[in-house]
Amino acid sequence: MESMSTTHDRSAVLAALTARLGAERVTSDVADLLVYASDGSTLHDATPAGVVFPESTAEVVDIVTTCAAHGVPFVARGSGTGLSGGAMALDGGIVVALNRLRRILDVDVPNRCARVQPGVANLAISRAVEHHGLHYAPDPSSQAVCSIGGNVAHNSGGPHTLKNGVTVNHVLGLQIVLSDGTLVDVGGPERPGYDLAALITGSEGTFGIVTEVTVKLSPLPEGVRTAIAAFATIDDASHAVTSVIAGGLMPAALEMLDRVVVAALEAAFGLTFPPGAAALLLLECDGPEDGLDDEISRAVDICREHGALEVRLARDDNERAALWTARKKAFGALGRIARNYCTQDGVIPRTKLPEMLRRVGEIADRHRLRVANVFHAGDGNLHPCILFDDRDADERARVVSAGREILDVCLELGGSLSGEHGIGIEKREAMARMFAEDDLAVMRALREALDPLGLCNPHKVLPGGSRCVELGPGGKQVHA
Amino acid sequence: MESMSTTHDRSAVLAALTARLGAERVTSDVADLLVYASDGSTLHDATPAGVVFPESTAEVVDIVTTCAAHGVPFVARGSGTGLSGGAMALDGGIVVALNRLRRILDVDVPNRCARVQPGVANLAISRAVEHHGLHYAPDPSSQAVCSIGGNVAHNSGGPHTLKNGVTVNHVLGLQIVLSDGTLVDVGGPERPGYDLAALITGSEGTFGIVTEVTVKLSPLPEGVRTAIAAFATIDDASHAVTSVIAGGLMPAALEMLDRVVVAALEAAFGLTFPPGAAALLLLECDGPEDGLDDEISRAVDICREHGALEVRLARDDNERAALWTARKKAFGALGRIARNYCTQDGVIPRTKLPEMLRRVGEIADRHRLRVANVFHAGDGNLHPCILFDDRDADERARVVSAGREILDVCLELGGSLSGEHGIGIEKREAMARMFAEDDLAVMRALREALDPLGLCNPHKVLPGGSRCVELGPGGKQVHA
Repeated sequence: MESMSTTHDRSAVLAALTARLGAERVTSDVADLLVYASDGSTLHDATPAGVVFPESTAEVVDIVTTCAAHGVPFVARGSGTGLSGGAMALDGGIVVALNRLRRILDVDVPNRCARVQPGVANLAISRAVEHHGLHYAPDPSSQAVCSIGGNVAHNSGGPHTLKNGVTVNHVLGLQIVLSDGTLVDVGGPERPGYDLAALITGSEGTFGIVTEVTVKLSPLPEGVRTAIAAFATIDDASHAVTSVIAGGLMPAALEMLDRVVVAALEAAFGLTFPPGAAALLLLECDGPEDGLDDEISRAVDICREHGALEVRLARDDNERAALWTARKKAFGALGRIARNYCTQDGVIPRTKLPEMLRRVGEIADRHRLRVANVFHAGDGNLHPCILFDDRDADERARVVSAGREILDVCLELGGSLSGEHGIGIEKREAMARMFAEDDLAVMRALREALDPLGLCNPHKVLPGGSRCVELGPGGKQVHA
Repeated sequence: MESMSTTHDRSAVLAALTARLGAERVTSDVADLLVYASDGSTLHDATPAGVVFPESTAEVVDIVTTCAAHGVPFVARGSGTGLSGGAMALDGGIVVALNRLRRILDVDVPNRCARVQPGVANLAISRAVEHHGLHYAPDPSSQAVCSIGGNVAHNSGGPHTLKNGVTVNHVLGLQIVLSDGTLVDVGGPERPGYDLAALITGSEGTFGIVTEVTVKLSPLPEGVRTAIAAFATIDDASHAVTSVIAGGLMPAALEMLDRVVVAALEAAFGLTFPPGAAALLLLECDGPEDGLDDEISRAVDICREHGALEVRLARDDNERAALWTARKKAFGALGRIARNYCTQDGVIPRTKLPEMLRRVGEIADRHRLRVANVFHAGDGNLHPCILFDDRDADERARVVSAGREILDVCLELGGSLSGEHGIGIEKREAMARMFAEDDLAVMRALREALDPLGLCNPHKVLPGGSRCVELGPGGKQVHA
């Protein structure tokens, strides 16, 4: 069922919540709303009817119940670092900002788990338990600020996904407020019955608002070895990746940067790489200290066999941090050479890397665009960054076309249209290119079973029909 | 909605299928049905209306469509090794025996995955890829015969779950026939949209019949070290387990056997243990060869610090196999000292092991029963085996009561009523003791969304209401 709320309904919700929570925790001020009209994605924005700041689970239940009573849609928002428009309120919905729900409720060291509120920053969990030799393993690039609730919504990965898996592999349980205000506790794979934690993880808020997350804590690796290899071609680097994995090694991270990024890093930060370097491969191994030197040197040997121009191996933590600088500053460096960039997120089988990168280059050439590649090579998760100038409408249109073509090649090569950035607004129509109608119908049936009124983050994730809204020029949403 | 099929409906289904598949692939012969009236569980049986043997996915679709047209329920069955009655057909349903769907359809070595039919035995996958240095990691004790489809249905674990995780961590995609005959492909966490593979894994056939499974293949560990430690008390062994984990070690397996099992192994197979041994702890570490000796010796040292009477370390593969004999023959040994045993399956936080085992002992004493404990200590997954004589109705009743009390203690200690054997018939009512009504309502809503006619393995997993059938004396099902 489609939400049919009116301006009157939205005002009634905001008035009721203001009365109960106080004016300082409900806003519909135009300047405030601007902050919540966009997220980390570049091609969309949408102004909510209002923003509410709950400070307890009970208040989230109250907010949801009030929205439901008036048929007003709502969407939870964490730190707003999402890259696919998932936290934008369409249909003039209400943004439920969870930043104040940021307490670590419980840490159980012997059983290695922690129960936290959704607004806690990813890295804050690891900081809170590091003195016990533990950490929360998934490490999205935005981990210093992105919220664990947002990680759950998008099933986030990171550079160490190759070894550690994605968010769902580290979620033991969730508490969620459904669209009718029911508060439900769901378990992960260690609990019997249906694995609702896995269903909800990655569902981008379309089943309700998560109010508590129980995460698995993992031992900090005893040792870490990091190296960067420079190659003359992206093909050489890609073949090295395939050989490292085929050789039975299981690096913690295998990150690749292409020549556009190399040039940007040299220009922006004065980093130096061997002459002719057109691809960098960052390799990291971790685990028990014994055997690590052997493991990284086997990986380094494989890089040399594939023609590495130079390999730098970090000898201590400072050198390790220096090697990571290239990877971590890559996006910042791109900011120096282009006014805007649009980060794509697609997945291909690892063995198709050389072909995929060649075709990304062809697509870029055909659309007269520059593309920089920064990606998780080990698990075939690409992040082609299309560089552009937002003020150039024609260039902007070419970015959208090129992005679509890149995803189509991912699908053609047997991959996926999203690795870790979610579907959100950006790729909901693309879902119909990846999945058969029957496959999508199952997802729709499950969504309607849990959210029959269609109030939980409507118009996201699934394509088609009345759930799709028009986006106007510049990605602005057109609504009454 | 409840299935209301009649004898006439069932006969019509069997006649239609016989006409299309041939008489040799459809049976309702009483002697044949006896084989399919029970599984590996001891307290239940139920006679199906008939058994059908499809040889292709298209035939599964045909069978399901035919059942749906007549409102007749159906249940998929693999090797029948399930321990909770999950593969029994209630309501006079049809058993869809998937044993002939046992082809390995595709092995992709570079991308480390395989697509297999559901009737393939778990171990057959590993055998097929071992020459590539790969294996399918989850290893239930019945892995030589149990089917991968059954593993998916129950989200099976095994002795190496501690390090490798359960089935859902190794399922990349599924093909499933829904109750209306729709054939759907669903992806795992690496695909966008809802993680339906995780929802379906562990759902015990209540969403449809899985016809293809894409599994992750993992590198065979380069090296393995195995040791057995004997302790004078189960408390000492339990504390050793907690210390090994707290020490930052991540053994591949940590299996425990109690004094009843030790005595049974000595009596049955002439295995010898140190005098006074009342608990055995089997420890296994695997991974890159370098560092393994250090890892196992640290674990052995921890056992000694906790008073181990003796520690035996395998020096080669033969000695390793000999150490595993104690674990693998444990259930067989119990068969020599009791006519029947009923294996319980509960989970507790690892730190509660000593308290839990003490309370299992108290429950056994109160009910005048002998209980043998064989279990996955590392992940707190207990398998207390209650020994009894099936011919003694009073003892049988005490087994049921003791089993219920054991599970209640698991829940009281913050654990779960099932680790890996599923809910099936056995524990569906217990679900209401573990989950709040709202939590169960969500599961029910999802089930009804995908199976509105209630034909997929009805009366399993969820408790209560009209979905529950009466079980007569001896567990025989009472139906028209």
